[in-house]
Amino acid sequence: MSTIFTQIIKGNIPCYKIAENAKFLAFLDIFPLVKGHTLVIPKIEVDYIFDLPESELSEILLFSKAVAAKIHKAFPEYQRIGISVIGLEVPHAHVHLVPINSADDINFTRPKLKLEPQELESIRKKIIEG
Amino acid sequence: MSTIFTQIIKGNIPCYKIAENAKFLAFLDIFPLVKGHTLVIPKIEVDYIFDLPESELSEILLFSKAVAAKIHKAFPEYQRIGISVIGLEVPHAHVHLVPINSADDINFTRPKLKLEPQELESIRKKIIEG
Repeated sequence: MSTIFTQIIKGNIPCYKIAENAKFLAFLDIFPLVKGHTLVIPKIEVDYIFDLPESELSEILLFSKAVAAKIHKAFPEYQRIGISVIGLEVPHAHVHLVPINSADDINFTRPKLKLEPQELESIRKKIIEG
Repeated sequence: MSTIFTQIIKGNIPCYKIAENAKFLAFLDIFPLVKGHTLVIPKIEVDYIFDLPESELSEILLFSKAVAAKIHKAFPEYQRIGISVIGLEVPHAHVHLVPINSADDINFTRPKLKLEPQELESIRKKIIEG
């Protein structure tokens, strides 16, 4: 049984795609802490980030850098893009990229935003169209 | 005026060192969220993690992997080691490695633990002596 993220990678479940290369996929978190909250996942299905092969572990922040720059350009009202890797829910390593002005913006115990599909699509366009 | 972290790297301010190589230093956060909470910093003084040179950005998680394994061995009661990069306080990029059983363990809006120096030293020994 593959994870929901592997189903997204395979195209069996749709996502609001931000970027992709041979090793990684970035897409909007549909339960975001703030608008622009994006997930970066390796295409290989590994639960714990530190169990990733060396190539993925070394390249995931390089890939994330370009994604973070796009997010920040779309949401310049935030000071920077924060990073969080928790991974207690979906057993497929994922990096959260979250626009932040305070530690509370990246506090995962807060209620998530509830956004309609058209709003998520509008955020996606804003990010990818720069 | 160099950051407090550069002062630590230079040895002008002491730290509870966990690991070090040519590019990175890992030491206990003295205001930890939970016991074992460790900081990994690049030796070059760069504020925003995504502004690090490619070599540092690609190697910081590889260096962190070995540190996280030591922390987890010392604190096996936690499910894994979470990662957070916020960086709104000290203008020197730093990766938080935090033992977690829940998202609240890595919630930076929570009050920090107040540990005595001898307790921090005891945690350091527990981590480095494996």
